[in-house]
Amino acid sequence: MKIKEKIASLRHEMTIKGLDAYIVLSTDPHQGEYIPEKWQARQWLSGFTGSAGTLIVTQFFAGLWTDSRYFIQAEEELKNAGIELVKLVIPHTPEFIEWLVNNLSENSRVGVDAKVVSSSLFEMMTNAFVKKKIQLSGEYDLVDKIWENRPELPENVVFEHDVKYAGIARNDKLNRIRALMNTKGADYHLICTLDDIAWTLNLRGQDVMYNPVFVSYLLIGKLDAYLFVQIEKLDNEIKDKLKSDNIKILAYNDLEELLPGIIAGNKVLLQLAKTNEWISGLVRKNAKLIDGQNIPVLLKSIKNPIELEHTRKVMEKDGVAMVRFFIWLESAIKNSVVDEFTCGEKIAFFRSQMPGYFGESFSPIVAYAGHGAIVHYSAKPDTAYNLKSEGILLIDSGGQYVDGTTDITRTISLGNPAEKQKMHFTLVLKGHIRVAMAKFPYGTKGFHLDTLARLDLWANQLNYGHGTGHGVGFFLNVHEGPQGISPNPAVNQVFESDMITSNEPGLYIEGQYGIRIENLILSKELSDKEGGPFLEFETLTLFPIDLNLVDSKLLDASEKIWLNKYHTEVYDRLSAYLNEDERLWLQSKTFPI
Amino acid sequence: MKIKEKIASLRHEMTIKGLDAYIVLSTDPHQGEYIPEKWQARQWLSGFTGSAGTLIVTQFFAGLWTDSRYFIQAEEELKNAGIELVKLVIPHTPEFIEWLVNNLSENSRVGVDAKVVSSSLFEMMTNAFVKKKIQLSGEYDLVDKIWENRPELPENVVFEHDVKYAGIARNDKLNRIRALMNTKGADYHLICTLDDIAWTLNLRGQDVMYNPVFVSYLLIGKLDAYLFVQIEKLDNEIKDKLKSDNIKILAYNDLEELLPGIIAGNKVLLQLAKTNEWISGLVRKNAKLIDGQNIPVLLKSIKNPIELEHTRKVMEKDGVAMVRFFIWLESAIKNSVVDEFTCGEKIAFFRSQMPGYFGESFSPIVAYAGHGAIVHYSAKPDTAYNLKSEGILLIDSGGQYVDGTTDITRTISLGNPAEKQKMHFTLVLKGHIRVAMAKFPYGTKGFHLDTLARLDLWANQLNYGHGTGHGVGFFLNVHEGPQGISPNPAVNQVFESDMITSNEPGLYIEGQYGIRIENLILSKELSDKEGGPFLEFETLTLFPIDLNLVDSKLLDASEKIWLNKYHTEVYDRLSAYLNEDERLWLQSKTFPI
Repeated sequence: MKIKEKIASLRHEMTIKGLDAYIVLSTDPHQGEYIPEKWQARQWLSGFTGSAGTLIVTQFFAGLWTDSRYFIQAEEELKNAGIELVKLVIPHTPEFIEWLVNNLSENSRVGVDAKVVSSSLFEMMTNAFVKKKIQLSGEYDLVDKIWENRPELPENVVFEHDVKYAGIARNDKLNRIRALMNTKGADYHLICTLDDIAWTLNLRGQDVMYNPVFVSYLLIGKLDAYLFVQIEKLDNEIKDKLKSDNIKILAYNDLEELLPGIIAGNKVLLQLAKTNEWISGLVRKNAKLIDGQNIPVLLKSIKNPIELEHTRKVMEKDGVAMVRFFIWLESAIKNSVVDEFTCGEKIAFFRSQMPGYFGESFSPIVAYAGHGAIVHYSAKPDTAYNLKSEGILLIDSGGQYVDGTTDITRTISLGNPAEKQKMHFTLVLKGHIRVAMAKFPYGTKGFHLDTLARLDLWANQLNYGHGTGHGVGFFLNVHEGPQGISPNPAVNQVFESDMITSNEPGLYIEGQYGIRIENLILSKELSDKEGGPFLEFETLTLFPIDLNLVDSKLLDASEKIWLNKYHTEVYDRLSAYLNEDERLWLQSKTFPI
Repeated sequence: MKIKEKIASLRHEMTIKGLDAYIVLSTDPHQGEYIPEKWQARQWLSGFTGSAGTLIVTQFFAGLWTDSRYFIQAEEELKNAGIELVKLVIPHTPEFIEWLVNNLSENSRVGVDAKVVSSSLFEMMTNAFVKKKIQLSGEYDLVDKIWENRPELPENVVFEHDVKYAGIARNDKLNRIRALMNTKGADYHLICTLDDIAWTLNLRGQDVMYNPVFVSYLLIGKLDAYLFVQIEKLDNEIKDKLKSDNIKILAYNDLEELLPGIIAGNKVLLQLAKTNEWISGLVRKNAKLIDGQNIPVLLKSIKNPIELEHTRKVMEKDGVAMVRFFIWLESAIKNSVVDEFTCGEKIAFFRSQMPGYFGESFSPIVAYAGHGAIVHYSAKPDTAYNLKSEGILLIDSGGQYVDGTTDITRTISLGNPAEKQKMHFTLVLKGHIRVAMAKFPYGTKGFHLDTLARLDLWANQLNYGHGTGHGVGFFLNVHEGPQGISPNPAVNQVFESDMITSNEPGLYIEGQYGIRIENLILSKELSDKEGGPFLEFETLTLFPIDLNLVDSKLLDASEKIWLNKYHTEVYDRLSAYLNEDERLWLQSKTFPI
């Protein structure tokens, strides 16, 4: 079916249902970052393949709202589809709501699939529609009616994440969650987010890209728990283990039938922003709903000692893979034609040689010269640049290992950096070091620390347009809340001891190059408590920062000490795993300045 | 009447009205920082004289909620009054609401004076009470019934603030406000806040301490305006001028009778957080209420070129007064007995000798040694410390002049500072300089900049418990919104060009000393716009920073340059007004380091 035909079919269904507008979102029932094919309805219907976008269809209009990352791509992909590109003014905001209010007449009826819209967004829309008496209905998954050969639910096997890695047994995690449910007066806690479920149950899956999670819902009671999942994904060993922890395994598609009976008359804690409206409706109808953050969110962000021990080892493995990749790259550029896309594959290859490798933690960004200034650049085989022995190359990549998750960005000179490039790189490095060296009182949040990364850039009237850091999971999502380092005060989580966060300031010169320096850092309470509790960061990631791009005149004494100490640690901890050639290469990259 | 008798009378009135609890707040109808005596009902009823506190009375309980600044004072003042001190966990929060919900039975009735409770607080209480079906009534000013000889409304004259100082004519201000009303679809804008009214009308008064404002309400229409004020406060000249700007003068006490007719059926913009519930009720009943920030708030925070020209001159006057005070102080300590309280009076005296002086802009803080660690210390004649030729003295004071408002804190050594004291002072100074030298992109808010002031303290596991800066009025309130520098993201205003803000980091060592260094700073757009709009600060305040307390080893080159440049400017701009002795004194305080 062509896009125009699909839209026409949708309009036909809308007429049958008496809907004046229909909203097709990019989300799935679990509000995840990566979406199984089954729920890529917006992509199937519109032809637009970007990760973020909302399609609105009326009888006379079809429009796709997306942000500036995707303007060029969307224009291309929507050509001849009869769908207008609507450019978001502020990224990640539901600006389509205002459009609906302004363009629909009073008493219009709007439809959306309740199974994929979060309750928070549903409520926001309902409130906005009141003034025009527009009625929002979540009953209709209209796309399902016209989507022939719609993909099935993913059916990949679920596997155990051994407690020797996870550090805390499943039942202990459940009991910690139950203790916190109790403080909130909740009889049940319903969790829809896949990483929270995977963490709680010490299980992993492969249902979506990059995130080792599996499609399911988890309902935790005071003594028991219920996992709604395609049962055939679990082998008998896992089933037995779950049963012995008093977790009942129920079919994913039986939730609608079984949930109401289990929770009837009880108090159910769930997070409206992370629960689809269909589920919230089931809860509201049969129980008392308590809105609150999913309890595993904070628990899993605070890494336990076993996880941290593994993480430090994983950083060594990942560092070794990076050493081998960069040695390959240096030689390959001299001896053959290498493009950005090939580099991404080669990084994954070198990681895959390390024990415990599971996959990449996100699609690698290999961005040469002007491509580096496109923050979310993703190389495609046919448009990738070939690398030359000059200019600046930015590589942002990460791995999933059973014993940890990595995320590292390095920016290197391929030859003859200009003074201005070195100045820019060194200003970014100063921000990176300022965050790495920061001490701060307990109570400090990401928006307090974000400025540290920008201070030296600001002094030169430079800045970058993204946050400075995100939380990172443990063999889980590379983007994990609740903490982060960002100018946005909505990232409102206090830094606790033992959280892993990225530290990745950057600078982007349009058409010329991008610079970003990213390590993962661990917040830790300082032993000396004289002035009340204070925290500091330990840098976890181990790989040299390109000294060819450092203008050491711009670094002060303490920054040089930090850099030299870091490079000493990188060399000391990686060299044991390297052969003689590799060791010499690493030594040449970690000379003191 | 003794306190116990007053409380008994109140309980009697409560019984007559069928109220189970009565709330007595510290606010007045205009939600100001300083309250005319007429509205100091909480103080009259409880005997507690602190600026912040809420009294709750039931038939079996009377309690006063206040914050840690006032715990000792409240305990003293409430002794034998039958009123329990309830200590706030978080300052400035209405924790009494939770107490009422927990301690009243279902269907209880609670009273509060609608004329002094803000609509925001009223709504917050109403929402909190719903779950217990507690009914909140704003009809009752019960204290009025028992308060014999209650003070009248203040009747001080209102005077013109000449446009040669104000910079923009009254009618031009009204028209700018009207243009912004139009963008919000408002027919009328009702303003209850006295500084916004004074600024808009280029009028000043003396109805409260320190803030040159007068009690009134202002209603601005599309072509006309209505000032509700005690008419006898205005002389004929002002009346004529107001009339010629199409402003009708109506009696303050006629508002209830006249407002409904004027606004009937129209759209009225007002700020619920700054409007009392009595007025909001009148508006809701007769018109459509639009909630939004009072328009003069942002307009008056952006100083016009005339105001800035005067401000720079006022800083010179204030600096000269400070020079004379500190010369007096140095000599007085050597030759006689001087205490903290006397110093405060002497500062006001030296300011009063300068042209255009109107009064102090707040109660001066003169805090010697351990008193300095009490952030809100206020010296009383009978408990003030005598100053000795040793230790650390903190002085925070400011003046109101017809051509501007000042606020300055200096911390000086009275002899032989210890190394640790110098270290502490220098760390505070580094934070002060970091803010003063900051450049930052347009869009930056106070919670982004606040960290700059703390960074060097944090590195030594030190911190301070107050914000770093507040907006300052122009011959108006020394505490003026909407911008500020604070870790609190609720201070959410972007820095605009031409805002005046204080820069006052500190450090407080309990029982030993307090350190604070405060200058006023002006945000200004940088002329070079290469990287998008950026701003920087110009330091306005002119007075030396005590070099005896500076450990220059702790300052980097750029900080020394800033300090020397600042001291050069202080000397250059003040010396013209000084006699030879004063000039020599100033020279000795501004030597380059």
